[in-house]
Amino acid sequence: MKSVSVADLAKMVDGEVVGDASVMVTSFAPLTAAGPGQISFLVKVITGDQLEALKGLQAAALIAPQKLEGEFSFPLIKVADPYLAEAKIHSFLVTEEFVAKGVHPRAYVGDDCELSDEITIKPLACVGDRVKIGARVTIESGAVIGDDVVIGDDCTIKANATLNERTVLGNKVVIHSGTVIGSDGYGYATDKMGNHFKRPQMGCVQIDDDVEIGSNTCVDCATYGVTHIKSGVKIDNQVQLGHNVVIGENSLIVAQAGIAGSTKLGRNVVLGARAATVGHLDIGDRVMMAAGAGAMSSIEAGSVVGGIPAMPVRQWRKAALLYTKLPELHKDIRRLKKDVEALNCKDLNGED
Amino acid sequence: MKSVSVADLAKMVDGEVVGDASVMVTSFAPLTAAGPGQISFLVKVITGDQLEALKGLQAAALIAPQKLEGEFSFPLIKVADPYLAEAKIHSFLVTEEFVAKGVHPRAYVGDDCELSDEITIKPLACVGDRVKIGARVTIESGAVIGDDVVIGDDCTIKANATLNERTVLGNKVVIHSGTVIGSDGYGYATDKMGNHFKRPQMGCVQIDDDVEIGSNTCVDCATYGVTHIKSGVKIDNQVQLGHNVVIGENSLIVAQAGIAGSTKLGRNVVLGARAATVGHLDIGDRVMMAAGAGAMSSIEAGSVVGGIPAMPVRQWRKAALLYTKLPELHKDIRRLKKDVEALNCKDLNGED
Amino acid sequence: MKSVSVADLAKMVDGEVVGDASVMVTSFAPLTAAGPGQISFLVKVITGDQLEALKGLQAAALIAPQKLEGEFSFPLIKVADPYLAEAKIHSFLVTEEFVAKGVHPRAYVGDDCELSDEITIKPLACVGDRVKIGARVTIESGAVIGDDVVIGDDCTIKANATLNERTVLGNKVVIHSGTVIGSDGYGYATDKMGNHFKRPQMGCVQIDDDVEIGSNTCVDCATYGVTHIKSGVKIDNQVQLGHNVVIGENSLIVAQAGIAGSTKLGRNVVLGARAATVGHLDIGDRVMMAAGAGAMSSIEAGSVVGGIPAMPVRQWRKAALLYTKLPELHKDIRRLKKDVEALNCKDLNGED
Repeated sequence: MKSVSVADLAKMVDGEVVGDASVMVTSFAPLTAAGPGQISFLVKVITGDQLEALKGLQAAALIAPQKLEGEFSFPLIKVADPYLAEAKIHSFLVTEEFVAKGVHPRAYVGDDCELSDEITIKPLACVGDRVKIGARVTIESGAVIGDDVVIGDDCTIKANATLNERTVLGNKVVIHSGTVIGSDGYGYATDKMGNHFKRPQMGCVQIDDDVEIGSNTCVDCATYGVTHIKSGVKIDNQVQLGHNVVIGENSLIVAQAGIAGSTKLGRNVVLGARAATVGHLDIGDRVMMAAGAGAMSSIEAGSVVGGIPAMPVRQWRKAALLYTKLPELHKDIRRLKKDVEALNCKDLNGED
Repeated sequence: MKSVSVADLAKMVDGEVVGDASVMVTSFAPLTAAGPGQISFLVKVITGDQLEALKGLQAAALIAPQKLEGEFSFPLIKVADPYLAEAKIHSFLVTEEFVAKGVHPRAYVGDDCELSDEITIKPLACVGDRVKIGARVTIESGAVIGDDVVIGDDCTIKANATLNERTVLGNKVVIHSGTVIGSDGYGYATDKMGNHFKRPQMGCVQIDDDVEIGSNTCVDCATYGVTHIKSGVKIDNQVQLGHNVVIGENSLIVAQAGIAGSTKLGRNVVLGARAATVGHLDIGDRVMMAAGAGAMSSIEAGSVVGGIPAMPVRQWRKAALLYTKLPELHKDIRRLKKDVEALNCKDLNGED
Repeated sequence: MKSVSVADLAKMVDGEVVGDASVMVTSFAPLTAAGPGQISFLVKVITGDQLEALKGLQAAALIAPQKLEGEFSFPLIKVADPYLAEAKIHSFLVTEEFVAKGVHPRAYVGDDCELSDEITIKPLACVGDRVKIGARVTIESGAVIGDDVVIGDDCTIKANATLNERTVLGNKVVIHSGTVIGSDGYGYATDKMGNHFKRPQMGCVQIDDDVEIGSNTCVDCATYGVTHIKSGVKIDNQVQLGHNVVIGENSLIVAQAGIAGSTKLGRNVVLGARAATVGHLDIGDRVMMAAGAGAMSSIEAGSVVGGIPAMPVRQWRKAALLYTKLPELHKDIRRLKKDVEALNCKDLNGED
């Protein structure tokens, strides 16, 4: 277990210490459970009874918003974004130094591999031929690493994940269980009889630094060249990325989303859960697609869209609400038709 | 093969025997295929030619609705719900006594585990350290059980399923192939530059008795505490449950459904195929969501909803039908606009 | 590496050679990258500057549309469908002769199996008891083949795929990583207390010749009989097929689609990405469902549908566009109501 001073933790997050900066912290706990030696965090300024209750906390320290007022028996680390500071400090506290356990005798490693000495390959993990693996990498049980795969430093391949042939991983990449990287893309040519002929899928998948990919996700290899997931991208569970897709830096793709072949996402794009795009689109930088949105055409940088087909998010919210009111609108239209017909009749008959 | 009297089978399902209760049954067969020694079932009362054909059946016995009339050459087990009685009797007939085959020498079991003697761990299954496993449990090939997992009695973990660290299973739990329990939840904090920092996912998944989970489903671990699947829940294939989700007793979740983080389902909820909810909702007891429904806000107990956003199911059926008729409604509106314009013109011109 | 004459390649694709048919080809390359010894393809006729640039290509040969005009320094193979010819020629060039590596000592094979001598079973693959496997089959690492499975000739089971008990595969079948064939169907009977009782799933999955199934897809076994995927079917990633589904010859099912239990698809049906059907439907031959379409009722042969519920595709395109315009339609209706009210008032008041 680590033991770090409040002063050192504050430095990590550009925080200002209010109180005794020499207090030592060993772990993180949620606000309601924090006790001696533990640090917790408060997202928003509180007042009144809530503030009084907070003062009774037995924690070692508290990450707090800059505008929090009051005197506390424990030191505060005041920051602009407590949520972000928590992620950094908590991660630091729980991250243990890598201990290399080597290649377990019950794991399998193929021929002509170049493995760092500082590595852990667990029992019943399987590494193919000519694989290169960097330092401080863990390959868990049941994971299968295909021939000619390259894995950088500080990566983790979780249990039962699969990296197919020629996949290239940068540093600090995490692939979760059941995920398949580099399976063949879906591409066939069809003859007049309706028989399908497979187009060879010759490319591979390249995944850059600091990418994390959840469970049971699929990333297909490129037909030629690479399907490319750029640095800092975070992908959730059960996502489908087709062949030759490009995901720009720091984009987020939430669970069950799907991106068809050759579509390119810019930087810092956010795809909500189950959002989808057809193939060959350009989704600009910082685009946000709401959960369930479906893009049928390219989207300009900075747009926030929702619905199927994807439209500006405000328009979508109105359209979705009106969808639920279609029965009422239908009644209105029928009534209007009767009224107008009646008016026309009167008109024709000169009845007024 | 079991051999059981009609009398004993009837007791299992609160049935009334009409005919010779001493007839012995060894297996179940569909109605069209049932022969000597076999029992089948009839869901609804039939009459006329169908009834006559039924009388020619060579089955050993028949599970039948209470109101079925007529004389048969085989005994009937009359019950209120033949479909339910079939499930119970058929399951009883096909369930074989557990035969413990022990830990296969080609399986791997880590250190400090507590395994029941009455266990089957198949070749190339992998069990981590400090794992506890109860009696009559089968771990199939390719399954990976993480460190500190607890598995109760009478559980089956199918081929290539993954239980991550600290997962807790009750009794009579079945986890099908490719399913991942206890992967990290999707949680990041983002700095002003758009870089994402992982929030540590410290919790686990708790699955209570009599739960069955299909193939390639994902259940994320909690950020803190537990993601909790309560007793009697049945989950289909390719379902996604986010971190800290709670699924109440006896709920059903059909294929490709998705539940975002921290949403809580009550008891006996039914989510149709591909139904989904956003995070942090309360879905009340006995709520039914139709296939493809999307809940954007909490739903009261007993509601039956459909559509996106989820609305009462009758309203949704109307709205969905009217959606297909939008081109007609649009024409109506255009015609109305012309008509009203014309009326207004006449009005202004005093043309009548 | 193969070396084949342009004449021989042209025969494979019913092509007409224009130029030197004796030129030898060893590999395929995209148009912009093709060099000596390489063949490439042109999908559509080009003219002007593009045509001039094409003439400068250093390729060994070019697959071209029949109407392409001009003189080239390399031979052309003129065909009706260059895209199709590319698939055939490229596949031929990259397909290597099967080299049987036998059963790796670190693989596991159960009792009473009948395996062809001409087989490759990779390390840490697992084959159950009484399994039959034909010639030129590869079982990759981490794949699990259940008891009593039958696999024909020329099949490939990729890493971490699972074939459950009694699955039957024809010839030339490819199952990609993480896919689960033959898991239990989702079928329960429920008592008055809301407890669910599993209906035994006694059937299996039958997959005919030339079928390819992508990654992390699920095909459930039948309750009785077979879930049947007929010859030439190509299925993408993360598709869900329920129990007793039948997929007709040469049908295509794109990623994340879902077909509920007992639905039958005819021949040459195309389900776009994430299309879905409820259970017990008949989807006729050559039906095309657009991406995201949802069938609530059976669909006649030859129909092209889209939307939820599925409707003729033109109607759907209009409806989807009008969905985005619901806010405008709503305004129109409100204005009409005011106008008609005004007209009625005037009418009543005799104001004109």
